[in-house]
Amino acid sequence: MDIRERILKGDKRACARLITMIENNNEEAIDILKELYKNTGNAYVVGITGPPGAGKSTLTDKLTKELRKLNKKVGIVAIDPTSPFSGGAILGDRIRMNDLSLDKDVFIRSMGTRGSLGGMSNSTWGAVKVLDIFGCDYIFIETVGVGQSEVDIVKTADTVLMVMVPNLGDDIQAIKAGIMEIADVFSINKSDLDGADKTKVEIEMNLDLNEQKDYRPPVVKVSAGQNKGIDTLLEKILEHRDYLERTDKLKEIRTRNNKLELLKMVEEDLMKIILDKAVKEDLLENLGKKITSKETDPYSAKDEIIALIRK
Amino acid sequence: MDIRERILKGDKRACARLITMIENNNEEAIDILKELYKNTGNAYVVGITGPPGAGKSTLTDKLTKELRKLNKKVGIVAIDPTSPFSGGAILGDRIRMNDLSLDKDVFIRSMGTRGSLGGMSNSTWGAVKVLDIFGCDYIFIETVGVGQSEVDIVKTADTVLMVMVPNLGDDIQAIKAGIMEIADVFSINKSDLDGADKTKVEIEMNLDLNEQKDYRPPVVKVSAGQNKGIDTLLEKILEHRDYLERTDKLKEIRTRNNKLELLKMVEEDLMKIILDKAVKEDLLENLGKKITSKETDPYSAKDEIIALIRK
Repeated sequence: MDIRERILKGDKRACARLITMIENNNEEAIDILKELYKNTGNAYVVGITGPPGAGKSTLTDKLTKELRKLNKKVGIVAIDPTSPFSGGAILGDRIRMNDLSLDKDVFIRSMGTRGSLGGMSNSTWGAVKVLDIFGCDYIFIETVGVGQSEVDIVKTADTVLMVMVPNLGDDIQAIKAGIMEIADVFSINKSDLDGADKTKVEIEMNLDLNEQKDYRPPVVKVSAGQNKGIDTLLEKILEHRDYLERTDKLKEIRTRNNKLELLKMVEEDLMKIILDKAVKEDLLENLGKKITSKETDPYSAKDEIIALIRK
Repeated sequence: MDIRERILKGDKRACARLITMIENNNEEAIDILKELYKNTGNAYVVGITGPPGAGKSTLTDKLTKELRKLNKKVGIVAIDPTSPFSGGAILGDRIRMNDLSLDKDVFIRSMGTRGSLGGMSNSTWGAVKVLDIFGCDYIFIETVGVGQSEVDIVKTADTVLMVMVPNLGDDIQAIKAGIMEIADVFSINKSDLDGADKTKVEIEMNLDLNEQKDYRPPVVKVSAGQNKGIDTLLEKILEHRDYLERTDKLKEIRTRNNKLELLKMVEEDLMKIILDKAVKEDLLENLGKKITSKETDPYSAKDEIIALIRK
């Protein structure tokens, strides 16, 4: 059977294969996705982010179980930091090998932040669309870390869940992360720890400062490890969805997200083109050396490389 | 007096002005930097990174004070996360307004991760070069967060210092950060806390796994707040410098870093060109809407935008 039909029929292996093909920047896979793009739109995408060690993976798994009680089909795309030297994802699917992975209506995929030929945004976008076509009702994009590229990716979700944790060293930690303003729902995980209430107050105070919208992000204390508060958290996520649908903002947000995704994909593609050319012609290596020896300066070198794309 | 001469004479205000001009992508400033590029090369660049809340700023300040005892001139470029909405840096120079900022031989600059017209890599690169020309012996590039773009920037330093902290929620936190392998020196800050020895053992074990080099990164317990271990930490940084100079690896590393910087600068420039064109012609907005309404798919849209650059 054709891979298209198999995915539309909910075949997990076909789904996994197409995602791998997309990660490898396979042209056939891109043609398939172009063709099946009309079948997307069913899935609701939730981005999950927060500082390292906040317990995002466990929380994602618990939210997935909660959605399974409602008989929803769930996809998880976990973006792992990639080892800069080996090129592979560091955590991989191994740690997610729990009971969820045996469920035919749950699809879990880990992706490295590098090493994918198509680039992280291209791969993430592709995986989410495949899971949408596959029939997922909800898709979680989970990112480890709070850096700019990760934030750029998680921002393209319909709802952004920010996972905080008490006592992360520094009172202004949340503000430092610089992503308070993109969160639609906050959860404080490990809230059995001392300091959870203090963290809640800090977030609420921050929200007071920014208040200008007709929607105020809720702050939910949970404990993913002890399975506490997960139902309330899911409720708040669904309330945000309801708000977006009711006010017709969902379409607006999706158009904004499409634009962001598009630019990231263009960036990744252009850099691939440039890198191929610059490496092939030894230009990059030569310019690197000339900058070190001060035969040229980086600005002039940059102009030389940019000229390549116009050739 | 001309801004070039003022900077070469060590005028802090001229230095600040040139950096601002570079952040604003001012062409005159770029010409100045091209011209003065031959005056760079004195400074040794140390990148400081680690998870949020690890106390990087305090540690940077303490290392700076240690270098001042040796009568070294020091520059600090702190990369702050930028509010995605206001566009401004979140922390700014305010929190660094301590006794250091009164020292004529210390220059501190905070930069937002966004909002700079020239892009983060262009601005960081520019600021570092200005400080090098200004006569700094050491320049610290300090990044909050452990995301990909931040890692890409800190990697271009001569020595990378990774600041860890005990009990960051998760034992594999260090590995998750995905940047263990780019660190030349590790420090465990707040090492008066329980768990510092456990963190040290974990890092050492990780280093055992990766051992293949003739240099093994040291792991130094410090307490920046209590000013403990800073002298030892600086010693280890200087030992890494000595190793690079002795083995002639410094030139090699600088060429590699120049290549990385060059590619990031090219990327930022190209995206600026693309964005200008796509926004001016309303193409981006229209494509965003068409993707939402499924009149087109993102891959076809991407090709349309890439075609712009070749026009």
